[in-house]
Amino acid sequence: MKQVRVAIAGLGTVGAAVFNMLKTHPSFEVTAVSARSKSKDRGVDMSGVSWVDNVVDLATRDDVDVVVEVMGGDGDPALPLVRTALSNNKHVVTANKALLAKHGVELAKLAEQNAVSLSYEAAVAGGIPIIKMLREGLSANDIDAVYGILNGTCNYILTTMEDTGRGFADVLSEAQTLGYAEADPTLDIDGGDTGHKLALLTALVFGAKPDFKSLSIQGVRSVSIEDIHAAGELNHRIKLIGLAQIQKTGRVLQMVTPALVPKSSPMAHVDGVLNGVLTIGNYVGQSFVSGRGAGAQPTASAIVADLIDIVRGSFTPVFGKPAAQLLDKESLDMSDWRGEFYMRLVVKDRVGVIADIAPILRDAYISIESMIQHGRSSGDKPISVVIVTHATSGRHMMDAVQKITKLDSMVASPFVMPILKI
Amino acid sequence: MKQVRVAIAGLGTVGAAVFNMLKTHPSFEVTAVSARSKSKDRGVDMSGVSWVDNVVDLATRDDVDVVVEVMGGDGDPALPLVRTALSNNKHVVTANKALLAKHGVELAKLAEQNAVSLSYEAAVAGGIPIIKMLREGLSANDIDAVYGILNGTCNYILTTMEDTGRGFADVLSEAQTLGYAEADPTLDIDGGDTGHKLALLTALVFGAKPDFKSLSIQGVRSVSIEDIHAAGELNHRIKLIGLAQIQKTGRVLQMVTPALVPKSSPMAHVDGVLNGVLTIGNYVGQSFVSGRGAGAQPTASAIVADLIDIVRGSFTPVFGKPAAQLLDKESLDMSDWRGEFYMRLVVKDRVGVIADIAPILRDAYISIESMIQHGRSSGDKPISVVIVTHATSGRHMMDAVQKITKLDSMVASPFVMPILKI
Repeated sequence: MKQVRVAIAGLGTVGAAVFNMLKTHPSFEVTAVSARSKSKDRGVDMSGVSWVDNVVDLATRDDVDVVVEVMGGDGDPALPLVRTALSNNKHVVTANKALLAKHGVELAKLAEQNAVSLSYEAAVAGGIPIIKMLREGLSANDIDAVYGILNGTCNYILTTMEDTGRGFADVLSEAQTLGYAEADPTLDIDGGDTGHKLALLTALVFGAKPDFKSLSIQGVRSVSIEDIHAAGELNHRIKLIGLAQIQKTGRVLQMVTPALVPKSSPMAHVDGVLNGVLTIGNYVGQSFVSGRGAGAQPTASAIVADLIDIVRGSFTPVFGKPAAQLLDKESLDMSDWRGEFYMRLVVKDRVGVIADIAPILRDAYISIESMIQHGRSSGDKPISVVIVTHATSGRHMMDAVQKITKLDSMVASPFVMPILKI
Repeated sequence: MKQVRVAIAGLGTVGAAVFNMLKTHPSFEVTAVSARSKSKDRGVDMSGVSWVDNVVDLATRDDVDVVVEVMGGDGDPALPLVRTALSNNKHVVTANKALLAKHGVELAKLAEQNAVSLSYEAAVAGGIPIIKMLREGLSANDIDAVYGILNGTCNYILTTMEDTGRGFADVLSEAQTLGYAEADPTLDIDGGDTGHKLALLTALVFGAKPDFKSLSIQGVRSVSIEDIHAAGELNHRIKLIGLAQIQKTGRVLQMVTPALVPKSSPMAHVDGVLNGVLTIGNYVGQSFVSGRGAGAQPTASAIVADLIDIVRGSFTPVFGKPAAQLLDKESLDMSDWRGEFYMRLVVKDRVGVIADIAPILRDAYISIESMIQHGRSSGDKPISVVIVTHATSGRHMMDAVQKITKLDSMVASPFVMPILKI
């Protein structure tokens, strides 16, 4: 069999791991690479491999059949590299969720026009073959909803808070020291990374254009140790969830939010840096998959699986159907979600608070299922009161929250999370 | 796009579900069917579809591109049907694990010679796309081990025993009434069905010929409610596990056995009729997937996914590599497994029993980690004593069991299960 000639753009830990995996694989030959620093020692033997200074030049070389893009970034040079590669009839395998979440439709069209693959198994949930599972394994199903724990950093922080009883800031700072969180953790903990991945899953399962811009995103910064304890008392765990569900109207609700997940759900047992995805298909019902979502080797493993598919001649449309058929589905957010909510209030003094809140909830047609108070009111110190509602609409909930925020007795805005029935 | 013309062999609940799914799918046309009784009302509209009396005739029709085989059975007529279809350049999609476990290599060669697909996603863990996940999603990995909960009937019985505290015979008889167990439950509860599926997974992940004959199989009949309680006290659950692992020697250990699984493992939370598979890959580490393993719609969903792959032109070798390259790996059984064991003794009188057993275990180099006694010795009534060993070899364990069985104080042979570290 003819060897497939691969160029690798980016030689960080993932790129180096791909390089090493391909070196021992009989179907592949790495012919060219490019990265920021040529002199850096990456522990890989690059003899016989061409070094290219301008990464976009990889896309036009005669000795390259596939470009592996593992640089990241949704602009220059990743975007021109992928564009040029596809236009020059080269397959592209990428781990770049941001790029695809923002430019996926354009790039999918380019891939189709040039009859090449644009593969991105590594972009979502690293070592878990979720793209393949959704696009091929469950292809007979209409998917009603997909729920993902897609960011290992957030999941590590939430799990560690629960295991140790420590607060968010403390655990984040430890995670940074241990290398589980970036020096600038914004993209992870504020939910952007989960949002990029969710946008790709949504496109895939609902045949819609990836729509990152209109995603409603709430990260994990506001989750306190009180929330984690209260969730535990309610027999739930808190997870940062990327959620997409199709409504009867055909519109798609997409949101990233910390949420309460029942302990009986497999999603509640996705711990530490693991990722997990739960889907609901019309024929198969609930399917669940979990595994390592990040790290050099799991990510590289997904990239090499995509490369093996190319060798085997397997082609599937980038988002499961031809790009021209992808729909502009109007995106909905939490205000269109319907279900039970968890609300934590931080109040100056519990006496009288319920009397203030009760009429607001009643006027918003929200009924209270239960209430938990943690700590005792001891004069000046604010205390937390947790309210669990019966099923209601997010819109009603948001209205009530706005009014509650204005009450004199509130120390901060209420913190609200949906309670998922999965 | 040209429609793919499908023949369906077998119109039980799965065949009828496939028929109905294809009716609304633009890529497919069902042109011919065959089943035991033509007159039976299956709630499907068969107008325009040819009825064939001799099912093997489906394989030679000019108006058929793919034969869907959902009759079951490893002999006549499934075997000649599939042979004839492949020989006549027709793709075959089947849910028939027994057929492939016994004749997989011959049929894979036939498929290759005729450049057609032989697909069997539905044969293992119905609605879970585990074949695709292993053959394609994790294709970059060397798999070290695969653990499967592959039989919904057994899992339903074990889960219900735990939930209700009722005994095996009682729960089995209820499961038969509810339709979760067959009138003749042998193939399920004695582990044969799990064995067929395991033989296919083993072939796939280790590149070996399916080897059902040399599989070591122990079903769930011997699991008592005492075992389930004792496992719970040890922070484990009992599951019927199909297990395959590759040894350093390159030999493959394959066995089907009830086993103790830690409650911290996702496999412990695969409840009721669900199936679950956990794999350990050299790059991705643990991956886990769960979902509905049986039932008309999940099984049909897997068959239609295979059909969609055929439309998309995706071809992968039946067992992940060309059939001629599949190895004859010598199969090992529990005597070659190494780990901790659970052993339940039923003894006449506890006094003196330990003094009898201790030297036997010592002579077999087995040390005791813990011991649990349930019920009190009240004269004549036999009692259960549970012993948990430190890690040892299965061979030593079997030797000790043989000797213990001969002791006067034993009412029955000891019941032994491995304790898995997953």
